[in-house]
Amino acid sequence: MSALYTLTNPVFRSFLFYAVASVLKMMAMSLLTSRQRFRKGAFANPEDIRPSKGKKIEPTFSDPDVERVRRNHLNDIENVVPFVLIGFCYTACNPAISTALWHFRVFFFSRLFHTFAYQVPFPQPSRALGFIVGLVATLSMAVQILLQVY
Amino acid sequence: MSALYTLTNPVFRSFLFYAVASVLKMMAMSLLTSRQRFRKGAFANPEDIRPSKGKKIEPTFSDPDVERVRRNHLNDIENVVPFVLIGFCYTACNPAISTALWHFRVFFFSRLFHTFAYQVPFPQPSRALGFIVGLVATLSMAVQILLQVY
Amino acid sequence: MSALYTLTNPVFRSFLFYAVASVLKMMAMSLLTSRQRFRKGAFANPEDIRPSKGKKIEPTFSDPDVERVRRNHLNDIENVVPFVLIGFCYTACNPAISTALWHFRVFFFSRLFHTFAYQVPFPQPSRALGFIVGLVATLSMAVQILLQVY
Repeated sequence: MSALYTLTNPVFRSFLFYAVASVLKMMAMSLLTSRQRFRKGAFANPEDIRPSKGKKIEPTFSDPDVERVRRNHLNDIENVVPFVLIGFCYTACNPAISTALWHFRVFFFSRLFHTFAYQVPFPQPSRALGFIVGLVATLSMAVQILLQVY
Repeated sequence: MSALYTLTNPVFRSFLFYAVASVLKMMAMSLLTSRQRFRKGAFANPEDIRPSKGKKIEPTFSDPDVERVRRNHLNDIENVVPFVLIGFCYTACNPAISTALWHFRVFFFSRLFHTFAYQVPFPQPSRALGFIVGLVATLSMAVQILLQVY
Repeated sequence: MSALYTLTNPVFRSFLFYAVASVLKMMAMSLLTSRQRFRKGAFANPEDIRPSKGKKIEPTFSDPDVERVRRNHLNDIENVVPFVLIGFCYTACNPAISTALWHFRVFFFSRLFHTFAYQVPFPQPSRALGFIVGLVATLSMAVQILLQVY
């Protein structure tokens, strides 16, 4: 068996691309949260607030636009992190490149769609569909790993 | 030294099993959250709510049953993700299989117990105990890595 | 190409040190949350509250000191987990040890500074600076991976 965790393994090479792309998409939510906090003047910490015209502004925890981005970010953490962790494990099982590539692609594009569905927002069940498709891709990899190592 | 990150290494093989099992347990909290949201009619997004009999239903952020599952899910993220990340690192240190296996088993079953203790719920200190046992398993691996690479 | 994911690769060895150190710093926020909950008597679950003198104490979700630690913890998850995931991928690209080491060091110390800036707290833009420096270190690794695997 040749080395699996090297750039010469096309499965691992594809995984690196989609794992990094998915994590970058997740990290983009941090910047989107900041943007919404500044746009709405809704900050969670007193030290973040620049007093304007002597008025003290209170921390805000319930701005709907900020909270929508934060829920999206947390949902990404709940789904993207498992994908990357399980994807690392999946590489060890030496799957066929075509099978692996479709899992990675389906996951990444389902999460991209999920983000648009959450932020625009699209009417349901758009967002639910994006969530479920990504979940199934991750679960499918998980089942293949468990069957091989059990 | 033979290849550590392959299925022929019994430590990595056991790690894959318990890492995937722990991540699946964590992901199950997503589905449990959905179930509680539907059961209680407590949705966080206006587009998730199906208006019934012309009544507008407001988003809900404080349903105790939904929030309990969400706290459990976040606690899993705070503990399961470190376990998997540190477990990957730990494999590089080529630990004895029996030592490694006990770390993985103790972690996984302590988190399983933690979830039941949180959701039933059991009286304290049941949940605290589940949390601490899992934490100690992860910390023990972390210390062994630091001692070996320092 | 020699084996990258072994302790004989100085890049991976350094990565293991800083990855484990960063994850331990993140996990410390759990204990800091517990400490603040006990100090302020602000618990999120009814079963966590010991009734004193027959008075029922209600769960608390808005204690400013507890919530500050929890926001810090979530911010760590949003930043430390991507660093470790991307760092694993980065190792596969076989970077120069000096380049890699500076990325790991800058990330770790920026997050350490971020935590102090959040908890003391220091006036802004201290915390924002700690956040941005860590983000840039992670993004720089991500870009190098994408350029190499694309």
